[in-house]
Amino acid sequence: MNSKKIIVQKFGGTSVADTDKIKNVARTILREQSFGNDVVVVVSAMGHTTDHLVKMAKEISPNPSGREMDMLLSTGEGISIALLAMAIQEAGGQAVSMNAMQVGIITENIHSKARIVDIKTDRIKRHLDEGKVVVIAGFQGVTPNGEVTTLGRGGSDTSAVALAAALEAARCDIYTDVEGVYTTDPRLVPTASRLDVVSYEEMLELARVGANVLHPRAVETAKMFKVPLRVRSSFKLDNLGTLIVGVEDMELQKPVTGVASDLSQLRIVVCDVPDVPGRAAQIFSKLADANISVDMIIQSYARKLENTNDIAFTIDKSDLDKTLKTLDNMKENIGASRFQVDENIAKVSIVGAGMIDRPGIAASMFDTLAEQNINIKMISTSEIKISCLVDELDADKAVIALHKAFNLNCDEIADVKGTLPDV
Amino acid sequence: MNSKKIIVQKFGGTSVADTDKIKNVARTILREQSFGNDVVVVVSAMGHTTDHLVKMAKEISPNPSGREMDMLLSTGEGISIALLAMAIQEAGGQAVSMNAMQVGIITENIHSKARIVDIKTDRIKRHLDEGKVVVIAGFQGVTPNGEVTTLGRGGSDTSAVALAAALEAARCDIYTDVEGVYTTDPRLVPTASRLDVVSYEEMLELARVGANVLHPRAVETAKMFKVPLRVRSSFKLDNLGTLIVGVEDMELQKPVTGVASDLSQLRIVVCDVPDVPGRAAQIFSKLADANISVDMIIQSYARKLENTNDIAFTIDKSDLDKTLKTLDNMKENIGASRFQVDENIAKVSIVGAGMIDRPGIAASMFDTLAEQNINIKMISTSEIKISCLVDELDADKAVIALHKAFNLNCDEIADVKGTLPDV
Repeated sequence: MNSKKIIVQKFGGTSVADTDKIKNVARTILREQSFGNDVVVVVSAMGHTTDHLVKMAKEISPNPSGREMDMLLSTGEGISIALLAMAIQEAGGQAVSMNAMQVGIITENIHSKARIVDIKTDRIKRHLDEGKVVVIAGFQGVTPNGEVTTLGRGGSDTSAVALAAALEAARCDIYTDVEGVYTTDPRLVPTASRLDVVSYEEMLELARVGANVLHPRAVETAKMFKVPLRVRSSFKLDNLGTLIVGVEDMELQKPVTGVASDLSQLRIVVCDVPDVPGRAAQIFSKLADANISVDMIIQSYARKLENTNDIAFTIDKSDLDKTLKTLDNMKENIGASRFQVDENIAKVSIVGAGMIDRPGIAASMFDTLAEQNINIKMISTSEIKISCLVDELDADKAVIALHKAFNLNCDEIADVKGTLPDV
Repeated sequence: MNSKKIIVQKFGGTSVADTDKIKNVARTILREQSFGNDVVVVVSAMGHTTDHLVKMAKEISPNPSGREMDMLLSTGEGISIALLAMAIQEAGGQAVSMNAMQVGIITENIHSKARIVDIKTDRIKRHLDEGKVVVIAGFQGVTPNGEVTTLGRGGSDTSAVALAAALEAARCDIYTDVEGVYTTDPRLVPTASRLDVVSYEEMLELARVGANVLHPRAVETAKMFKVPLRVRSSFKLDNLGTLIVGVEDMELQKPVTGVASDLSQLRIVVCDVPDVPGRAAQIFSKLADANISVDMIIQSYARKLENTNDIAFTIDKSDLDKTLKTLDNMKENIGASRFQVDENIAKVSIVGAGMIDRPGIAASMFDTLAEQNINIKMISTSEIKISCLVDELDADKAVIALHKAFNLNCDEIADVKGTLPDV
């Protein structure tokens, strides 16, 4: 009965930070509708609302229950959806706001970081058929028993992508305060160029190494359900931003798509671990039990004389206390002599789906760093990413050199862009 | 399986205005629970939250849709219930917050002033059986189709009483910033005394004539379901406040329970209406169609010579524009010569269930006013109330004189209080 394309648009907290910005967003939404599309909008809490709610909760309890925290935080999106629906109506459109309970965004029964397991689409579709824009609260869900949950970091991006998948939307547009995905951080490298198109896999690697445009969970969900994603500016609507699609939909022309650095990690070396089978498993399973994400891992060759290994790994700086406590608890069991913490490190990575079939990319990266006299402390590789751990002070120099070495500067990239699929 | 008494407690916006006050409320709740009762709490939005939300809505639209306004305002109680549940937990209790949708507070499908039609109690009772305090959002409801509604003025009081009725609670305690119901406004008459007990009917009349302690809707609901209500101070817990019960549960000892004045009305006189049957009906049905509440009505004796009447009535001051517009539209139809507006009036009333069987109370009232040289402009009576319209400037003098004339000063009332039923 309705053959229009559905476009899902997501607006973050800065895009709806005050009532003037909300009016601006309403115009952006009606513009998309005027192109003949059905529009579903996902919106986060207004600017500082969440901070204000968290502050009050902390005044009451240093460690509030997850259930009540989710009840509290979900009110933030409750405010922004209602105001945005009013703004659309005031601008002459038809709109209806819906919270997660009204839509039926069903999640697991876990608080503060629930995963979506199902989304009901019947009520949304009924409203769309009536010509309405449907404005949906991001970040929140509801369990089958009617408990309110939240999705954790990147939650609104994930809500938008999951809704786009459930609604079989033609596209999910993530509106943000940047103009798209760049070959590297434009504040560091002024010649960084915006990518017209990038694959889910590349985006995932870029997101993980510090290009904070989209949360990896949202990209993973988009990849799983093949939802074309567009990252674009809330303020420059004539700029189409960056389209993120499956690698099979792209024509790969460059081995490296982007360069990124990540200063959020630190390195821990567990020294002089006896070279006995199962010691590494022991360490990393205990860390996993403590919910600590470990990124790069290197085990040195056993020193024949002492018959011991050093095991080095990187973690997020915020997990340091928890990690040291976990390690201390098992120090005697694993027989390590000591733990060494190195906070002054940076992870520099090159990412590109095109490197799969091209040998020598890693070698080029190491050469480039050597030319800059940068010492590599650890290396890790995946199919489409190579990361090197370097001294924090060398991070910017490394990014600039690699960006140039792989021909990513905007004056060079014009003729080698990926081809833009028609979505 | 649970034979404990259920007590419903309601806390208004000033009682939960900041996080310190919320902690204080948590202690009051746990104190009631420590008496061996199950406790269900109904809470309003924090102090200025609603004003802030309304301000943002007005920035976006001068006339926002009722549906979206209800979605917006309902977030206010969402915040206070979660924070209060956290505060109870932090104070060592068990608590769970629930919004109207989670409880199932079912209302008509009308926005901004819905009436409750049903309340589901199974989830509340399950939580109570687990030893939890159940903290419920006041003022809001949900339609059978899952639309969010609000109950309008006095909504949280009504939520509390309706929940008490549905749960067959032993009592509904309305915590507020006054110590109970007084014989008249203690700011005006320092010798005003707090009533230990008052009947629903008297409370209704007192509420309607300006004793703003409890919303009449809540009192009406309590009367209908015979829910004993207690109005008491959030800050003086050793003071039991005023108990409101059925007149059949009281021993009546005084004809007059309270004196109140109301400055919120104005008088309109429709002059020289031809004395033809149906003219009054015509006027008041048009006013009713325009949703204007008319309070006192007087039609003068027809002047034989001109064969016309004057019809005078009082309305709320805020309805003046709407009323004049409605009257103007029918001026020719009803044949009135002009409309006269008198804004400087006050309605002074005496209320008491005991006046039913005692003749001469009205005469005493008129005598008292005459002694003070106060001119009576209009009179209206009900079974338990007599109201006189007087000049605004005479209102305070009238209240003080009536309060004394009917022996309501606290030094006289001690031995004639109503008997307190055991609830």
